[in-house]
Amino acid sequence: MIGTPFLYERLAEELVAAIAAGRLPDGARLPSIRQLCADHGISPATAFQTYATLEARGLVEVRPRSGYYVRTRQASRPLPPPVARPRPGAQKVSVSELIFELLGSVQDSAVVPLGSAFPPPELFPFEALARSGARAMRQLKPAQITGALVRGDEPLRELLHRRHAQQGVALDPGELVITHGAMEALNLCLQACTRPGDVVVVESPTFYAALQTIERLNLRALEVATDPQEGVDLAALEALLQQRRVAACWFMPNFQNPLGALMPLAKKKALVALLARHGIPLVEDDVYGELHGGAHRPLPAKAFDQAGLVLHCSSFSKCLAPGYRVGWAAAGRYTAQVQRLKMMSTLATSLPAQRAVADYLAHGGYDRHLRQLRQALSAQRQRAARQIARHFPAGTRVTHPEGGYFLWLELPAGVDAMALSQDALAQGISTAPGLLFSADQRFVHHLRLNIGRPDDVRVDEALRTLGGLARQRLAGP
Amino acid sequence: MIGTPFLYERLAEELVAAIAAGRLPDGARLPSIRQLCADHGISPATAFQTYATLEARGLVEVRPRSGYYVRTRQASRPLPPPVARPRPGAQKVSVSELIFELLGSVQDSAVVPLGSAFPPPELFPFEALARSGARAMRQLKPAQITGALVRGDEPLRELLHRRHAQQGVALDPGELVITHGAMEALNLCLQACTRPGDVVVVESPTFYAALQTIERLNLRALEVATDPQEGVDLAALEALLQQRRVAACWFMPNFQNPLGALMPLAKKKALVALLARHGIPLVEDDVYGELHGGAHRPLPAKAFDQAGLVLHCSSFSKCLAPGYRVGWAAAGRYTAQVQRLKMMSTLATSLPAQRAVADYLAHGGYDRHLRQLRQALSAQRQRAARQIARHFPAGTRVTHPEGGYFLWLELPAGVDAMALSQDALAQGISTAPGLLFSADQRFVHHLRLNIGRPDDVRVDEALRTLGGLARQRLAGP
Repeated sequence: MIGTPFLYERLAEELVAAIAAGRLPDGARLPSIRQLCADHGISPATAFQTYATLEARGLVEVRPRSGYYVRTRQASRPLPPPVARPRPGAQKVSVSELIFELLGSVQDSAVVPLGSAFPPPELFPFEALARSGARAMRQLKPAQITGALVRGDEPLRELLHRRHAQQGVALDPGELVITHGAMEALNLCLQACTRPGDVVVVESPTFYAALQTIERLNLRALEVATDPQEGVDLAALEALLQQRRVAACWFMPNFQNPLGALMPLAKKKALVALLARHGIPLVEDDVYGELHGGAHRPLPAKAFDQAGLVLHCSSFSKCLAPGYRVGWAAAGRYTAQVQRLKMMSTLATSLPAQRAVADYLAHGGYDRHLRQLRQALSAQRQRAARQIARHFPAGTRVTHPEGGYFLWLELPAGVDAMALSQDALAQGISTAPGLLFSADQRFVHHLRLNIGRPDDVRVDEALRTLGGLARQRLAGP
Repeated sequence: MIGTPFLYERLAEELVAAIAAGRLPDGARLPSIRQLCADHGISPATAFQTYATLEARGLVEVRPRSGYYVRTRQASRPLPPPVARPRPGAQKVSVSELIFELLGSVQDSAVVPLGSAFPPPELFPFEALARSGARAMRQLKPAQITGALVRGDEPLRELLHRRHAQQGVALDPGELVITHGAMEALNLCLQACTRPGDVVVVESPTFYAALQTIERLNLRALEVATDPQEGVDLAALEALLQQRRVAACWFMPNFQNPLGALMPLAKKKALVALLARHGIPLVEDDVYGELHGGAHRPLPAKAFDQAGLVLHCSSFSKCLAPGYRVGWAAAGRYTAQVQRLKMMSTLATSLPAQRAVADYLAHGGYDRHLRQLRQALSAQRQRAARQIARHFPAGTRVTHPEGGYFLWLELPAGVDAMALSQDALAQGISTAPGLLFSADQRFVHHLRLNIGRPDDVRVDEALRTLGGLARQRLAGP
């Protein structure tokens, strides 16, 4: 599934080189699409892709009804937020009320869903998946129904196994369990390696679903300082592990939700080694790994797991098939326990969705879809960052993630993010206030924004409105 | 979805009347298929259906290469087992090891799956479902993806609501939550109305999944005497409720697994009233209700629920779409809590399966499929009961359920059912030993047999083999 560069990629590289060498200076008008086609003997689609690639990297801007221009002098880019230092001590968790309110608002189609956790559904190949599903289900033999129990349908398990291997992750045979989305995988994995009352280390801030699972399983959360660019602070983690008994960690090394942090390769390796020394399992949530903006998919921590202590969880919900609820766990030495918990709670994963995804992976051009998706999201991250730089109050800090579709904002200390979130909802804009992302509700000036929806003036307008509301809050009543 | 009788049903009634009046005596040869077609101007398919209906009722038998014969003198029919009186006291539960072994053997296609809990997959319209799924998924609008969160996809919820109403069960709007099969519904419902350490009353014997859920949620099981024909002994239940604090009941009033008991209507009403007086929720597992052998689908206990205390759970896994994992809960006053637990554990139910089922319900002829399915299972119950009467040791008792596809056997006291089950597995036959169906592992001479596979000589042979093995065990070494 890994190939040579596409024509548009080669052409984009040539233009990058020309910009870097100054042959195309800041503000220079680039050839029109028609001209580019004529110069290089390419199709308009390829020409569009070429400029879209440069736009995604922030090197080109589109001026409506005028054309494409080189843009190397960046608008003054806001700083990323500093590393948050959590209070010491494990917390009983209770964030669910807030989360249910947020999820309620996300389902209202009249609201601009900057608070949503879901990728923009317009970006996914639902028609092709439906064709795949129909073809695969017609070929289903009745005897395969019970065969797909518990571990999942064999064709999908084989494809996933192969894909992991191609990406540098060697899984044990039998280690994969197909689940109803990553959410089920994460729930089962955390339950498999903990007992009620145990302490689980999470990032700070952390994805609220981790807090919900910890709450549901009667565990306690212990937050560890987390760098917005590089993820968990390993020195801080080691200090925690030396101080107290920890049952497990739940981390997202690739494009952490909400920070977007991407843990560097060497740091992932060190993390796995550190936890192995302490014999502590790592529940790894890798649902955003495929949504990278770079040349290669970043490896998950699982790639370095030799002790069977990494319980790797992921899904197709963010990168191919939202709503299908197809995820998986590769749970190392906890595999049998994960299978049993699965059997006792949902028994097996829905077959039509598994078959549709497997057929699409085998025949549908998954990697082509991923390239387009990554490019659309990269462009959106750039576009939204520009809007925020323009419209938010001075002193606002914002992350610059290299993947995914979230930005994490730290507003000036005078802005109560919860109140701002309510102002915004009254204007038809949902946001995810920072309170959701911590067991002790520390992130009171913070917002997570889903900016993934491509080329949507509603998102631009919503960011402008939100910036204005933040200024009003700062100015006071 | 309810219509006038079919031609074959009318013709079958005429023949029943003739048999009852003695115009067709025991042993009389019935007209050949060809003759029946000529006499009544009907198609061969209708003629076959007519005789199949009579066969299902045990009034006609087929003699290979000879024809159809009236059969009114029954082979001496074994007695049903007596009501089991459980020991007093709530039990911590631990039956999982046995169950995982059983489920492992069921997945081996070389084994005759008399131990399986699943209906025979050959009886289901997988092709039509695949077409339905493809059609419905192609029409899916991206915005509907997030709309289907938590409660389930709207078209399916509407169809289910209407179907319940047609069957005499008025649900509140908003009460339905679509789940990954009944298993998830039951798990969520039991968790919604209990806390760790609570006591849950279950039937004796009870479905092992209830015991697994009780084990997983750290609850305790209290068994109540259960009549093989009529279900839970209400006097015994009332005595329990007066003696101790009970958090919930988990019962299957329609075709209880493993007994096949069908609670009469008035008794269901009395059960709901009794529990309402005590303010105790009833988790109702109704997955076999559609598999009745009578003229009408028996009402669930939910039909009598006025206090919102019945958490009704069911699915399409036994009656339409095994492997699709589409079930539902109508959880009364616990609905919000069920939704939240769902959101925290699997988030939402897989869309392709929901859409496929909804489209099939709207266009596919669900009731025609159900008629055929019921008839096939009725015929199988008769056929298997005859085999058991012939081949099992004297003193063997067996249930005569009016629905579903399980028979529950009580073997003579000299036969250790666990040992017999192992003998059988060595001969390529799986069975579900009685030990699985009780928290205190009391049913040591009992087996649950899945006899649903239609017209399978392998089932006949397996029952003959099993009877022989039981005789050997009885005779001793």
